[in-house]
Amino acid sequence: MDRSVIALLYGPDQPGIVAKVAGWIHQHGGNVLHADQHLDRQENIFFQRVEWNPEASRDLRAESDAFADFATNDLGMKVRIALSEDRPKIALMVSKADHCFHDLVLRVKSGEWNAKISGVLSNHEGMRNSAEGYGLEYLFLPFSKGSKKEVEAKQLSWLQEQGVELVILARYMQVLSSDFLDRVGCPVINIHHSFLPSFAGAKPYHQAYQRGVKLIGATAHYVTVDLDEGPIIEQDVTRVSHRHGPKDLIEKGRDLEKLVLSRAVRRHLQNRVLDYGNKTVVFD
Amino acid sequence: MDRSVIALLYGPDQPGIVAKVAGWIHQHGGNVLHADQHLDRQENIFFQRVEWNPEASRDLRAESDAFADFATNDLGMKVRIALSEDRPKIALMVSKADHCFHDLVLRVKSGEWNAKISGVLSNHEGMRNSAEGYGLEYLFLPFSKGSKKEVEAKQLSWLQEQGVELVILARYMQVLSSDFLDRVGCPVINIHHSFLPSFAGAKPYHQAYQRGVKLIGATAHYVTVDLDEGPIIEQDVTRVSHRHGPKDLIEKGRDLEKLVLSRAVRRHLQNRVLDYGNKTVVFD
Amino acid sequence: MDRSVIALLYGPDQPGIVAKVAGWIHQHGGNVLHADQHLDRQENIFFQRVEWNPEASRDLRAESDAFADFATNDLGMKVRIALSEDRPKIALMVSKADHCFHDLVLRVKSGEWNAKISGVLSNHEGMRNSAEGYGLEYLFLPFSKGSKKEVEAKQLSWLQEQGVELVILARYMQVLSSDFLDRVGCPVINIHHSFLPSFAGAKPYHQAYQRGVKLIGATAHYVTVDLDEGPIIEQDVTRVSHRHGPKDLIEKGRDLEKLVLSRAVRRHLQNRVLDYGNKTVVFD
Amino acid sequence: MDRSVIALLYGPDQPGIVAKVAGWIHQHGGNVLHADQHLDRQENIFFQRVEWNPEASRDLRAESDAFADFATNDLGMKVRIALSEDRPKIALMVSKADHCFHDLVLRVKSGEWNAKISGVLSNHEGMRNSAEGYGLEYLFLPFSKGSKKEVEAKQLSWLQEQGVELVILARYMQVLSSDFLDRVGCPVINIHHSFLPSFAGAKPYHQAYQRGVKLIGATAHYVTVDLDEGPIIEQDVTRVSHRHGPKDLIEKGRDLEKLVLSRAVRRHLQNRVLDYGNKTVVFD
Repeated sequence: MDRSVIALLYGPDQPGIVAKVAGWIHQHGGNVLHADQHLDRQENIFFQRVEWNPEASRDLRAESDAFADFATNDLGMKVRIALSEDRPKIALMVSKADHCFHDLVLRVKSGEWNAKISGVLSNHEGMRNSAEGYGLEYLFLPFSKGSKKEVEAKQLSWLQEQGVELVILARYMQVLSSDFLDRVGCPVINIHHSFLPSFAGAKPYHQAYQRGVKLIGATAHYVTVDLDEGPIIEQDVTRVSHRHGPKDLIEKGRDLEKLVLSRAVRRHLQNRVLDYGNKTVVFD
Repeated sequence: MDRSVIALLYGPDQPGIVAKVAGWIHQHGGNVLHADQHLDRQENIFFQRVEWNPEASRDLRAESDAFADFATNDLGMKVRIALSEDRPKIALMVSKADHCFHDLVLRVKSGEWNAKISGVLSNHEGMRNSAEGYGLEYLFLPFSKGSKKEVEAKQLSWLQEQGVELVILARYMQVLSSDFLDRVGCPVINIHHSFLPSFAGAKPYHQAYQRGVKLIGATAHYVTVDLDEGPIIEQDVTRVSHRHGPKDLIEKGRDLEKLVLSRAVRRHLQNRVLDYGNKTVVFD
Repeated sequence: MDRSVIALLYGPDQPGIVAKVAGWIHQHGGNVLHADQHLDRQENIFFQRVEWNPEASRDLRAESDAFADFATNDLGMKVRIALSEDRPKIALMVSKADHCFHDLVLRVKSGEWNAKISGVLSNHEGMRNSAEGYGLEYLFLPFSKGSKKEVEAKQLSWLQEQGVELVILARYMQVLSSDFLDRVGCPVINIHHSFLPSFAGAKPYHQAYQRGVKLIGATAHYVTVDLDEGPIIEQDVTRVSHRHGPKDLIEKGRDLEKLVLSRAVRRHLQNRVLDYGNKTVVFD
Repeated sequence: MDRSVIALLYGPDQPGIVAKVAGWIHQHGGNVLHADQHLDRQENIFFQRVEWNPEASRDLRAESDAFADFATNDLGMKVRIALSEDRPKIALMVSKADHCFHDLVLRVKSGEWNAKISGVLSNHEGMRNSAEGYGLEYLFLPFSKGSKKEVEAKQLSWLQEQGVELVILARYMQVLSSDFLDRVGCPVINIHHSFLPSFAGAKPYHQAYQRGVKLIGATAHYVTVDLDEGPIIEQDVTRVSHRHGPKDLIEKGRDLEKLVLSRAVRRHLQNRVLDYGNKTVVFD
């Protein structure tokens, strides 16, 4: 694999940014592999993803620090940087449905993604055997009336001990408190089993059945304090008909949820996603 | 083409309906070409579409009347019947956007559908030349404050004079009153430029842009008094990204609207659509 | 779940078949749940899938035998019958790629399909641990020069001992001999990693890359002696661009292969697929 | 609309190209609106599409000439340049099927594309009235035995008189000779009614029906001397089943052909397509 640096930049547009970024890399002996940019003309915000091979002798971490300094101080941009050698740590949060759980774990185990799974947090015991069969730590923390604060505190302390860099809600059926989200310190990706904003909230497949829609969908998004309102990373749909009852929609939906969540996670891990306001820029 | 009768039946489920319908046709010397059925188990309603060739000597109209009598009186079902020789009369209602208008007219003119267009009703003058170029009558009835009742009365009387059997709202931007819908006496199909129930109401592409969705959609539905809530006949979506502003969504949406509306109208004209409650059964 | 009988019939078209089948079921106290039919007008072959609840007191096996007798002798049709209580035995044949293997096993284990897996046959050892971790027998039979006949004989005898009713080639990279196919005694479903008939044969993703196609596909089909020419059950595609090299196509293709193969197997297990000549009828 | 220059560059990769291009634009007072690049690592060819606003006082033509000189002489790249004010001249070549013809003309007339249609060439008279109704010149040149050379000479001289910059074969059913292609002097885009490379040659929908595929497709490509082998610009598919005979495939295919051809033409007109070898780079 290439030994490369990937930078995601964004900030107020200004003349010559593209030239300055490309110039900096060239002057430091680097070679641009990919560069993609976007300008939100309504907000006048500039976005860029640029990936480059630094000069052979150059330490990746040093290159990345120097570039971050340049982007922040000389360009006034926000910047996020990843290195080709990074293997971010993921935590999975699950409840009862296990299809996304297996799908994600098998992708990581097969080497499809450059990441490792720190463990699995659940409010149910059902996936313990599967998780441990995969060699993963399983932290079972059930909820009872009034225990939410305490459970979340334990989840947070575990996530921080592990140094988790991405939390994935793989059909986790508890709402995260705003306090949890303030303190988690890394992005949280959720899969919602509808084509948002249609059918937000509970039992979306039953809602879809009642409404008689001809397509059902799934939506992967970053979690924010506004339930089901976070920035959308990926969506897809599949066709249904009058022949499909709620159980059929649930079954068809499972395949959709796996695909949509895995695409969103892949792009996040490839450092292709920038969220701003309530939207995302996803560089393909 | 086959000389055939197409019946759409629905009503409370009961044992042996399929056998009775098939038996009636067989006893009268007919030959079933297609038969499709559906049972809504939650509501216990049975639906069937059956198409058959009557015996060669048999008059189509007589066969159809006899079957309607049997289905209503012996089976207690509601029934709608079409003959292969029918060419239903369509009225188009339009405002400013003309893409669906051209698409529908060209399909009828090319013989793709077995139908004829009685004329075009509009609250704007913009499509008069195109309509008249196609040899179609163009009835221009503008709205002014307080004129809705009067305009709708003229529309209704024109529709009834012509014997119109299907009204298509091809991006018609006025809401039809419940009084109009009570009196129109034939189905009305609308194309909504979003994936309902997302983004009902005005300016759906702008809403979609604001929400940052990754797919946009279009929905064809029968019009009921509940705006944007009528039974859905067909929906489809297309992929968009952060690169697409509202104008791009509108442009991409036009192709989607044409396709979705044309598929809904085709199935309606082929007598494949039954609506009940707030849903449709669409026999493929 | 319903206690039901599902019959797949086909044979030369004749007047009144639909009425006779529905009549037989009604006379024996059964209630039709679904009935779907198709007429290939070019070949004049009639196809039907009918599913019904027999009378409560009636033994499913007896009903099924009686119907088979009626369909064969009175109607002159070929017939295949399944009961809602059946759990067909599946064998998986695999080589090195394990994504379809995991996908299929997890679907069976989760109860998504009404089937059981008898075991896994492979010409490589790589999936032994995974298979045994799932509690499945793993039969490793490597090929060496001149050993094909002998290996296939062992495979066949294992399949017959187990009473296997469906063989799935889940990215099995050996060609089955015509002798094997003559003797296997049950259907064999394969997943080909291209949109057949494009890119038959080896390395289809590399062929697709060379040709510069904008969509790649996967095809599930029954295996016949004509390699990659068997009756197609299901196909699907996904979009690619100039940015995707052969490795990207392989990665994207994996998700497609899993989906397409699982849809084909689901429909086969639901007794929805009839193959005739080089085609299939798939009742949805 | 923006007053902008769009350059498409390609050539052997070399260090610092991105920086040099961005630097040149910045030094001349321009502001980059979009920049997209691609590196074919197997062939080591670099591709870029860059769009920028020149300094307000600067003449677009002068800017474009200066950039072309820089790209060719300083960078050693091949370059193609378009200006936002350009309205390329299109010729349509048609035979009997008129769906793509109407679709393309209506898009141009509605202002969806920044182009004008010089006229319509046909070997049949059937679309004369429609074309003239749209105000377009119609050049009818029928083929008879041995007349191909002569007809093509007339076509070429008409195309050159008009200064045509893009020829679209909108279901034109004659093969263009290699001599015609050598001399036409502008790109030629064709729509093939199959998912190439499947079903090249004649009657692709009949071939698809015979093979029993579950999806049919359409392919828009640049025309080269190798029939149906030119660089693919766009493809798409739609689902079919055993219920669809050749006539249904033809009807479903028409919608696909219109969409796929229009998307390819749109991207070509937006100067987003580079062809090299037997492939295209399509910048989205």
